[in-house]
Amino acid sequence: MTPRTGLWLVGARGGIAATVAVGLAALKQGAAATTGLVTEGPRLGPLVERLDPIRWDSLVLGGHDIRSTPLAEAARLLENQNGALPHGSAAAYADELAEADRRIRPGVAFRSGPAIERLTEAGCLHEAATPRAAIDQIRADLEAFAADNSLDRVVVVFLGSTEPPVDTASLPARWEELGKTLSDSAGCPLRASSLYAIAAIEAGMPFVNFTPSLGSDCEAIDELARQRAVCHAGRDGKTGETLLKTVLAPMFAERNLEVMSWVGHNIFGNRDGEVLDDPEHKATKVHSKDAVLPPILGYAPQTLVSIESIRSLGDWKTAWDHVHFRGFMGVPMTLQLTWQGCDSALAAPLVLDLARLIDLAQRHGEAGVVRPLAGFFKSPMGASTSDFGAQSRELVDWVASLNGAAS
Amino acid sequence: MTPRTGLWLVGARGGIAATVAVGLAALKQGAAATTGLVTEGPRLGPLVERLDPIRWDSLVLGGHDIRSTPLAEAARLLENQNGALPHGSAAAYADELAEADRRIRPGVAFRSGPAIERLTEAGCLHEAATPRAAIDQIRADLEAFAADNSLDRVVVVFLGSTEPPVDTASLPARWEELGKTLSDSAGCPLRASSLYAIAAIEAGMPFVNFTPSLGSDCEAIDELARQRAVCHAGRDGKTGETLLKTVLAPMFAERNLEVMSWVGHNIFGNRDGEVLDDPEHKATKVHSKDAVLPPILGYAPQTLVSIESIRSLGDWKTAWDHVHFRGFMGVPMTLQLTWQGCDSALAAPLVLDLARLIDLAQRHGEAGVVRPLAGFFKSPMGASTSDFGAQSRELVDWVASLNGAAS
Amino acid sequence: MTPRTGLWLVGARGGIAATVAVGLAALKQGAAATTGLVTEGPRLGPLVERLDPIRWDSLVLGGHDIRSTPLAEAARLLENQNGALPHGSAAAYADELAEADRRIRPGVAFRSGPAIERLTEAGCLHEAATPRAAIDQIRADLEAFAADNSLDRVVVVFLGSTEPPVDTASLPARWEELGKTLSDSAGCPLRASSLYAIAAIEAGMPFVNFTPSLGSDCEAIDELARQRAVCHAGRDGKTGETLLKTVLAPMFAERNLEVMSWVGHNIFGNRDGEVLDDPEHKATKVHSKDAVLPPILGYAPQTLVSIESIRSLGDWKTAWDHVHFRGFMGVPMTLQLTWQGCDSALAAPLVLDLARLIDLAQRHGEAGVVRPLAGFFKSPMGASTSDFGAQSRELVDWVASLNGAAS
Amino acid sequence: MTPRTGLWLVGARGGIAATVAVGLAALKQGAAATTGLVTEGPRLGPLVERLDPIRWDSLVLGGHDIRSTPLAEAARLLENQNGALPHGSAAAYADELAEADRRIRPGVAFRSGPAIERLTEAGCLHEAATPRAAIDQIRADLEAFAADNSLDRVVVVFLGSTEPPVDTASLPARWEELGKTLSDSAGCPLRASSLYAIAAIEAGMPFVNFTPSLGSDCEAIDELARQRAVCHAGRDGKTGETLLKTVLAPMFAERNLEVMSWVGHNIFGNRDGEVLDDPEHKATKVHSKDAVLPPILGYAPQTLVSIESIRSLGDWKTAWDHVHFRGFMGVPMTLQLTWQGCDSALAAPLVLDLARLIDLAQRHGEAGVVRPLAGFFKSPMGASTSDFGAQSRELVDWVASLNGAAS
Ligand SMILES: NC(=O)c1ccc[n+]([C@@H]2O[C@H](COP(=O)([O-])OP(=O)(O)OC[C@H]3O[C@@H](n4cnc5c(N)ncnc54)[C@H](O)[C@@H]3O)[C@@H](O)[C@H]2O)c1
Ligand SMILES: NC(=O)c1ccc[n+]([C@@H]2O[C@H](COP(=O)([O-])OP(=O)(O)OC[C@H]3O[C@@H](n4cnc5c(N)ncnc54)[C@H](O)[C@@H]3O)[C@@H](O)[C@H]2O)c1
Ligand SMILES: NC(=O)c1ccc[n+]([C@@H]2O[C@H](COP(=O)([O-])OP(=O)(O)OC[C@H]3O[C@@H](n4cnc5c(N)ncnc54)[C@H](O)[C@@H]3O)[C@@H](O)[C@H]2O)c1
Ligand SMILES: NC(=O)c1ccc[n+]([C@@H]2O[C@H](COP(=O)([O-])OP(=O)(O)OC[C@H]3O[C@@H](n4cnc5c(N)ncnc54)[C@H](O)[C@@H]3O)[C@@H](O)[C@H]2O)c1
Ligand code: NA
Ligand code: NA
Repeated sequence: MTPRTGLWLVGARGGIAATVAVGLAALKQGAAATTGLVTEGPRLGPLVERLDPIRWDSLVLGGHDIRSTPLAEAARLLENQNGALPHGSAAAYADELAEADRRIRPGVAFRSGPAIERLTEAGCLHEAATPRAAIDQIRADLEAFAADNSLDRVVVVFLGSTEPPVDTASLPARWEELGKTLSDSAGCPLRASSLYAIAAIEAGMPFVNFTPSLGSDCEAIDELARQRAVCHAGRDGKTGETLLKTVLAPMFAERNLEVMSWVGHNIFGNRDGEVLDDPEHKATKVHSKDAVLPPILGYAPQTLVSIESIRSLGDWKTAWDHVHFRGFMGVPMTLQLTWQGCDSALAAPLVLDLARLIDLAQRHGEAGVVRPLAGFFKSPMGASTSDFGAQSRELVDWVASLNGAAS
Repeated sequence: MTPRTGLWLVGARGGIAATVAVGLAALKQGAAATTGLVTEGPRLGPLVERLDPIRWDSLVLGGHDIRSTPLAEAARLLENQNGALPHGSAAAYADELAEADRRIRPGVAFRSGPAIERLTEAGCLHEAATPRAAIDQIRADLEAFAADNSLDRVVVVFLGSTEPPVDTASLPARWEELGKTLSDSAGCPLRASSLYAIAAIEAGMPFVNFTPSLGSDCEAIDELARQRAVCHAGRDGKTGETLLKTVLAPMFAERNLEVMSWVGHNIFGNRDGEVLDDPEHKATKVHSKDAVLPPILGYAPQTLVSIESIRSLGDWKTAWDHVHFRGFMGVPMTLQLTWQGCDSALAAPLVLDLARLIDLAQRHGEAGVVRPLAGFFKSPMGASTSDFGAQSRELVDWVASLNGAAS
Repeated sequence: MTPRTGLWLVGARGGIAATVAVGLAALKQGAAATTGLVTEGPRLGPLVERLDPIRWDSLVLGGHDIRSTPLAEAARLLENQNGALPHGSAAAYADELAEADRRIRPGVAFRSGPAIERLTEAGCLHEAATPRAAIDQIRADLEAFAADNSLDRVVVVFLGSTEPPVDTASLPARWEELGKTLSDSAGCPLRASSLYAIAAIEAGMPFVNFTPSLGSDCEAIDELARQRAVCHAGRDGKTGETLLKTVLAPMFAERNLEVMSWVGHNIFGNRDGEVLDDPEHKATKVHSKDAVLPPILGYAPQTLVSIESIRSLGDWKTAWDHVHFRGFMGVPMTLQLTWQGCDSALAAPLVLDLARLIDLAQRHGEAGVVRPLAGFFKSPMGASTSDFGAQSRELVDWVASLNGAAS
Repeated sequence: MTPRTGLWLVGARGGIAATVAVGLAALKQGAAATTGLVTEGPRLGPLVERLDPIRWDSLVLGGHDIRSTPLAEAARLLENQNGALPHGSAAAYADELAEADRRIRPGVAFRSGPAIERLTEAGCLHEAATPRAAIDQIRADLEAFAADNSLDRVVVVFLGSTEPPVDTASLPARWEELGKTLSDSAGCPLRASSLYAIAAIEAGMPFVNFTPSLGSDCEAIDELARQRAVCHAGRDGKTGETLLKTVLAPMFAERNLEVMSWVGHNIFGNRDGEVLDDPEHKATKVHSKDAVLPPILGYAPQTLVSIESIRSLGDWKTAWDHVHFRGFMGVPMTLQLTWQGCDSALAAPLVLDLARLIDLAQRHGEAGVVRPLAGFFKSPMGASTSDFGAQSRELVDWVASLNGAAS
């Protein structure tokens, strides 16, 4: 019998989560093409298929959120944002969305920053006395989800709004020490995203951080993951402008063309954009988008990444990139790009792919950071390269090796 | 003692050739950075270096052309086209350019098409009675070049204006049969670019076709090359818009995003643009630019490539690309690119790189098409992939293997 | 009592016509904002209002077409082309659309060109023995429309697909002579658009030509219009790229910046685009788009207008413009534009505006070409200027003068 | 005999000033076309000519600056910034530049902000005890310039780096009161740009403020100008992105299309860009660029203007504008613009035009703000409209009226 798998989304009422919920309902009914799903694509698809991956029709959704907007309303909003979801989606899958709604629990918002605090609704927040108490509550929710729905396995994906940066220099390198800070709200250096990560790992459930927030990206939490033999991956889904950078920069390197400056200006108008409009939160995202070039180029050109919230654009991320480079005899040249992408529609299939792939890693006995997933992230943990082509190869090679092990 | 190598350019008075001549003079004097030279880049550079490649300061230039404009004048024109060459270049290297000028011989223009005929100047054309007679004259010029300049080796690069397409279906597959047609001007299906290729191969000199003209790209000429143990490579240097296509299309494939249409509009105003403005000649170029997507994507989206001559742009190729693609749940999205590149400055270093690399291939005993050079061309002969990242890897692997053989 | 006015659309089942039909239904129900309607805007609105213009709720739609697709289906197609009409429009106004459908009659297709012939459906074409017979049938349809619907006035707007160019040099200058050619199918130099114009004028109904086809744009038909005291206007609605040209070119003139070249590349994928993909038909459109710069600039820069049909874009006209200009000391600079507009949504409100304004002209006793409407057209008949700002002023001044006359 | 006129530039060693100096030298020698000069253009040229305007060959340059870089060096820098001046300019006009250099005096830098303070060089700053003392020194310099060079008239143009904003609410409305603050360095609310304005006006010399700094833009200084019968004009030359806004926004208004958002992202790399990179200074510029839309549109869409310093671009201002607007039935559409202009080459001819036009105003007995010059400025003092077309008409009408008065 097909094992039943659970997909637990933190930020379960947000734009990406709503798109995941609609898309999954459509996939279950055979109403959606598999466009955008890497694990259904021509290269990876056949390799993944042989590993008996999560089946869309046996996947059960649940999650945490700090707001109460029903998923159908979130979906309708996307429909009305210039078709970020096909029209009629919310209506067509009203039952599935309502069902998923019932499995969403109040979240925790420890040190989440001013913009997230403004989002929080009464009744949607679990107020815990200490970080440790918060973790235990999260873990209890996760385990109840598994039990109530007779799930064989659960994957946790963090899709919560972007938190302010954490001063990583101040984090203890060993789990033993970091763990101690959890009982003291004042002394704990972590934010909510990391509490979710710890809870998932302690529950033995693989954890994916799709956001630029810290999550599990520190030595101590990775140590915990390896101790518990749990897989984790992340940081910050690579869906648009940064994806293009990691695709194009290798060309400049191969051709020995010197990038003098690379400017990226991003505008969009959804809730994510609103949160990022707060300078404390924005710092986290800009940092994540801005670090990819030097490892590819071998030097650091002047770069500038700006992100601005323009309400009329809704979920449509528009990014203008201006690359100024030098060729033979020093002749200066220019490449400009305009990317007009729908952020949630770009992100949602990757969330499903990551659930599948980290589940495969976990089932094949891996633990700690799953490095071959680097290509999915802007700031991949422990990545050997930022070159998207190279990352894609590593992913294929890894899945092929799982096949090898399996046979 | 360093062996003296000759670089023979067909189209020796054109924009690319003039940029090669200025660039080489600047490299010899240490006045130019190696920007734009793939064989001097961070990846390939060290590997190539160990193989004792052609040294810029021992490279001697010569060539054929059907026009008489001195190289210094061609260089001045580029300087004045919005800085396609650094100001003062023609003056700074007047002696070197004049010396190269003296080694340029009248060309042949067999079936070269109306736009090339319009370019031809009296006194610059070798009028041969038959294709075979033309080949023999070319070969005599090549051998005189080697003898007069005490050259150990010569590489021939075809940089002539683009000819109209050849009906390849009508070409005999065997050299024996093709060779027979050469004595009959009326019955010979080839054009000048192929006569240059045959002459070089018969002279035992490796041949590179940097243009979309046929050159050596047919079975029969490849057979000749393998018989004579001569290397050849080509077709149509990949310097701008098509390069971007082969860099970006793999991303759409990896992410399983469906490209619905890809439109490319190219405008530029140099002599190459004028020739391509003639519909007969343009057909060859458009075909070359338009074939790269299906092998990468696995399907054929609607494509449109247009090339138009806009005089005010001079050597500045401006290309606008509009990619319309579909993501998860069928949501349509758009990527636009504007490329503002200086065509000759992009092409010239690749000519130098190709001379170095095909010379290495020849010295290492290879013969026929040098497949690992595929990434340099829009329509690579015998290529296993159109994906630029994969091509770059193959190139590095090949040079590494030559190192292995060398050690 | 409010007079009942009829709006007769030739090409009544096309994209623009369907948008007019949906928009009118929405305006009648107060469900649509007046965005896009010039006669409801802040400048012209109050002036027009005082002249008792056509009221949207007393406007009755009818028309000719050579195809049978119901309006609701045309509207649904637009909805599905990335929201060229708001979702649910066809369903919301099903009754109104069906009613308008019943008032559409078979058209005539005299010398309409190959692409229009391919569109024609059996049963939708009135086959007349001579052009004169076709005109009489059209007139009979127009008069029946007025009678059956108790209309006080009727305006005819030509929205048919673009015909091939007419050799205007061969057209007689006097109506007497042109009229004579109508009885001889072989000798008549006109095409269907002009037959519709003649029929409307002979019926005493003002005629607007929203397309680049000839329509009423010749001396002889204008003579007829003046004889019959009927207003006419046209040629080729100015909705996108050409609008931008007539807005931006005056800036270059005022600032004495020299435009060296202006390139415009248009891609779109609706039926209009398909028809224009045929070279015979395209010639008419390109000519219309390409003539606006010299009168504004005072000299003729190199220009290039291309129009290509890219199916995936549907009604979304995307135009890339590249303007290369020279400033002080000859320094070359560049302006690029990308226009992403929905063609029918841009055109439809102008059709309603033109109906209102030509009806006002007719009621105020004007006859012949209504010159102050020049700003609505790419190739305005008898225009004194191509500068959009100047045209807008002339329009306001004219409506103000009608107010003056009225008071 | 032709009257000798002086042009005094504050910021005389900056990019615009150096371009003025080179351009003027070239015009004097007949070596430069009049491209970019509004007063030499087809519309205004003939009207201005009849008023006996300043002749380029009788114009004498002088100025203030707080740095010592010779003009020839400033010019060479522009030449090397991708041809912001034609190559060889500095060399060709070395004598004229050296002569102008000798007429540049140390400036004053009262409350000029941190970024300007960083620019200041020892020996180039006149240290005055009070603002009044500074004004008197400036005036003495101006009068010495006139006397030493036997000038009949002098025009002063402020081209100094942009200062931080002034809290205009705190400025007294009457000259009597403002004048009193000048003797007290601590209590004076003005910055250097206004001290230059006051000095010029007190010397009876017309004053143009080409920058966003306050200059003469306050009631009290205008009162002084009217008392002394001196003309002044300003604020912030309209040369690029803002020019486009005031050209394009009227189109949206005329067509009743609703602008939802307008985003402008400006990147450039000259000294002006460096100064504006300081947040205190940037605030002044962003404010000036951001206020033009509401008066044209009649409502305030969301706008965002960003300016960033990207060193590799030098004097090449690249601006990307993204306009999101709504048409009929609410359909959202997009217009994008990329402007690649050379800032100094755009500004310099306007400086010459403004000198000519304000000199004409002064000679025709006008006093106070010269309103018809509004079209030259981003934040025009006392303008009746922001619409560039309307402003251009007002300018022509005004010059025509001077002709009328003259005849
Ligand atoms: N293409 C993309 O959309 C993309 C790419 C990379 C990263 N991201 C990141 O993914 C995240 C989600 O993006 P989105 O567009 O869905 O944003 P969203 O604002 O629509 O959704 C975020 C959701 O998280 C909830 N939330 C916030 N803090 C929480 C907490 N502590 N506990 C539980 N729920 C919490 C919010 O209430 C909201 O429903 C953001 O951090 C974004 O930066 C998105
Ligand atoms: N980035 C690039 O510039 C680029 C990229 C790919 C391919 N190419 C191709 O390279 C070629 C050269 O480009 P270019 O910009 O230097 O053009 P060009 O017109 O400046 O130079 C071509 C030269 O070839 C000469 N020529 C023409 N026919 C000849 C013949 N039969 N024999 C000898 N000489 C002949 C011409 O007189 C001219 O001097 C063109 O075919 C072009 O399409 C250029
Ligand atoms: N922004 C714009 O959409 C725009 C701007 C300027 C001009 N135009 C012109 O307006 C016209 C209509 O555009 P559309 O997008 O609605 O095109 P469309 O193809 O959707 O509609 C044209 C309609 O005309 C009908 N038709 C063709 N020939 C006819 C004839 N002889 N008699 C009666 N009906 C006939 C066709 O069957 C079709 O239904 C085209 O000529 C187009 O070039 C459009
Ligand atoms: N297109 C344009 O270039 C444009 C358009 C509108 C406004 N502006 C404004 O014009 C001004 C000049 O631009 P630029 O590109 O020449 O800049 P720049 O930095 O090259 O020149 C400014 C000059 O002013 C000098 N300066 C600064 N403070 C001074 C003071 N108090 N007294 C005397 N000199 C002083 C500086 O030393 C420098 O030489 C800037 O304020 C800029 O914002 C420029
Ligand atoms: Na249309
Ligand atoms: Na400047």
